[in-house]
Amino acid sequence: MPSPAPPLAGVLETALYVDDMSLARRFYEDALGLVPMFADARLTAYPVGPRSALLLFLRGATAEVVHLPGGAIPGHAGEGPLHCALAIAAADLADWEARLIATGIPIEARMVWPRGSTSVYFRDPDGHLLELATPGLWPVW
Amino acid sequence: MPSPAPPLAGVLETALYVDDMSLARRFYEDALGLVPMFADARLTAYPVGPRSALLLFLRGATAEVVHLPGGAIPGHAGEGPLHCALAIAAADLADWEARLIATGIPIEARMVWPRGSTSVYFRDPDGHLLELATPGLWPVW
Repeated sequence: MPSPAPPLAGVLETALYVDDMSLARRFYEDALGLVPMFADARLTAYPVGPRSALLLFLRGATAEVVHLPGGAIPGHAGEGPLHCALAIAAADLADWEARLIATGIPIEARMVWPRGSTSVYFRDPDGHLLELATPGLWPVW
Repeated sequence: MPSPAPPLAGVLETALYVDDMSLARRFYEDALGLVPMFADARLTAYPVGPRSALLLFLRGATAEVVHLPGGAIPGHAGEGPLHCALAIAAADLADWEARLIATGIPIEARMVWPRGSTSVYFRDPDGHLLELATPGLWPVW
């Protein structure tokens, strides 16, 4: 093994796969308040906080290599209800729960973690398991 | 629709699903240099940079609800080669490429993006499409 790995600054992109981009966009934009930084028929990309991006790919549109002037993007594809967690401030938890309820999104479960974090779980229109997590879940949050 | 959504601080957790946890751990720890902050038979959790976590779940072990003293974690499950991108400094790109080659990981493709970022694509043992991306890919990186 060579010398220690160079550093990784963070997870930059997290990808979910959706069957109906319009339906998914209504959810992520109207309910969660995200604003796209890129959108076409295949991909909607949202900035989340200062340093991460949530990517919604149209299911079935990503398995083939995409050739672009600058190179190529290899294929990928996801099935099943994936999971990702979004970080929120503890002070915003009550407002987020109220917002989910007001927008008709059932809260499927809650967790209070040993280090003090609270997580709230709910589903997007494709059944992906989303989590809003307050600080105290991991050493990095 | 109620008032504007409270802020999201970032994507905290990105989940991949693996068939062989030992094999996956060797890849993420030996090749990518990640150090677990939690590990059991079902889950290995890695901090990535200051504010994000990469979660490896054993495929088949996540579909059922997990009941814990603090609440419950609903089921999720993923199939197929998913995608996530990891942020690296531009100054570390050459070292990262050399490290991938030295550890026998084929570089499947490269992209130079319009705003100046370079992405390098490769696969983990489960075929998930990983990307190392230098700044200039998105407004958030």
